[in-house]
Amino acid sequence: MTFRFTSIGNSSAVPAYGRIPSAHILNYKESYFLFDCAEGTQMEMMRLGIRRSRIRHIFISHLHGDHFLGLPGLLNTLNLLNHQKEMHVYAFPGLKELIDMEMRISGHQFRFPLHFHDLEDEETPLLLDEAEYKVSSFPLVHRIPCRGFLFREKMPPRKIRAEKLAEYAVPVEEIEKIRSGSDFLTADGRLIPNEELTREGRPPRSFAYVTDTLYLEALAERLQGVDLLYHEATFMEKDAQRAEETCHSTAAQAARIASMAGVKKLVLGHFSAKYRDLTPLLDEARKIFPETYLSAPGLTFDI
Amino acid sequence: MTFRFTSIGNSSAVPAYGRIPSAHILNYKESYFLFDCAEGTQMEMMRLGIRRSRIRHIFISHLHGDHFLGLPGLLNTLNLLNHQKEMHVYAFPGLKELIDMEMRISGHQFRFPLHFHDLEDEETPLLLDEAEYKVSSFPLVHRIPCRGFLFREKMPPRKIRAEKLAEYAVPVEEIEKIRSGSDFLTADGRLIPNEELTREGRPPRSFAYVTDTLYLEALAERLQGVDLLYHEATFMEKDAQRAEETCHSTAAQAARIASMAGVKKLVLGHFSAKYRDLTPLLDEARKIFPETYLSAPGLTFDI
Repeated sequence: MTFRFTSIGNSSAVPAYGRIPSAHILNYKESYFLFDCAEGTQMEMMRLGIRRSRIRHIFISHLHGDHFLGLPGLLNTLNLLNHQKEMHVYAFPGLKELIDMEMRISGHQFRFPLHFHDLEDEETPLLLDEAEYKVSSFPLVHRIPCRGFLFREKMPPRKIRAEKLAEYAVPVEEIEKIRSGSDFLTADGRLIPNEELTREGRPPRSFAYVTDTLYLEALAERLQGVDLLYHEATFMEKDAQRAEETCHSTAAQAARIASMAGVKKLVLGHFSAKYRDLTPLLDEARKIFPETYLSAPGLTFDI
Repeated sequence: MTFRFTSIGNSSAVPAYGRIPSAHILNYKESYFLFDCAEGTQMEMMRLGIRRSRIRHIFISHLHGDHFLGLPGLLNTLNLLNHQKEMHVYAFPGLKELIDMEMRISGHQFRFPLHFHDLEDEETPLLLDEAEYKVSSFPLVHRIPCRGFLFREKMPPRKIRAEKLAEYAVPVEEIEKIRSGSDFLTADGRLIPNEELTREGRPPRSFAYVTDTLYLEALAERLQGVDLLYHEATFMEKDAQRAEETCHSTAAQAARIASMAGVKKLVLGHFSAKYRDLTPLLDEARKIFPETYLSAPGLTFDI
């Protein structure tokens, strides 16, 4: 039941101090969801021992180079390593054109099914709606169209109470139905309600990815109760004017969103190359939201 | 008078074992000439302490991703770091289209002069013809159009013989002319030939870059006497059939070219990911051409 977040890259526009720009993995039951794909993502994944072949879905927040320049190389490598599984890329339309052009000039063709999904500029479109989870996107405010992503597990199935199955002599073939919410009719005609036969499963888990954006207070409502929020913190509060001019957030602003949304954990990332030491950003955010962490290559949380 | 070769990436199609694909720097008097630019080139340069801002000319042999996917990020970073100097890129035309599209979708513009030069499919076109050196390109045989590059220093100026200047009382203002080859007329009317006033300068230096290509015997003539030859050696001789099918060379074939051309040093690179240990490729080549070396990140030769 893995639900694991791992940072790969935490720099903003340019690589600096050994940090590459944005790339993050969400491992959901050993299927990987990649959020942004900066240049060097495939190498960092190799270095960190994270299998590239497990990636099934790739979400590209917007088309600034530090968020997608590693995608052509990653897809190219999977292709050459004879990847077979379907791959889904969610991005603004220019990225498909670009990948198409790259394949055309190199004379290569993808040997695995590669599907592009356009991030339209609508309110909260549902990108994925699977049995166990859904992924939606929502608009951010940046210099070019940009979207955040919200991964929410659906309500996990209720748990069977073994002692009740014994008590009412439930046959094996009825168990799956009960797990899915059915009541049970005993041999002597009594209807046993599902609530008696099961107890609540664990709470559904969630992850939100927010980069790049101006401070956007409206996000707090949308992200209520999220388990792990990744939020950009390109600047410190003392550089708030620079953040506003470039449509970015400060560490304090990210913490305010986390606090208002009542999330469980906040991970800051997308750090400006002007900060070599990142601990002041952490200190700034922790004053507002104590459960804050700094993205770093390999930083991992089991949610 | 620096003339220094440094390898940055030595892998073929995919990054493997911490090796990135093709990228190499020629430092000529602190101007850098970059030969190919795989994904991760800018990070590896940072790691190796090689200043990206010194790059003036970039040569892209062909449009397979492992030779150019680092270029958008490198140019993007220079742009964000407020690079001002002119940059020249020599490549097949698709690359300019691709960079143009990347700038368009990201909404960025280059703030430094960026000039693209198309590698036309002619015989030995001269790409650069400067006072001290020239760079030409020549066709290779690969699956898509591909070219090698030859950097040749021009004959350095002759050296002044100080004792002769004194003997003939040469005025200071005449010295530059003599250095450039002029004879000298003494006050009493004697013509002193330049050969007496000067001696030969050091021999001109040269570097050749050959990747990707089928074994091409005709190269030996073109590369006669080159000081340092970089030649791809994707495979070993035991995989010669695979080399031929994919239009690549073996280590032994590269060594044969080096031997026939009478070059001084051979550097092998563009290694297939099938070889983790590269010393067997070195052994194979050294049996034919002893002055062979393996490209490795940071491997440097002062020529």
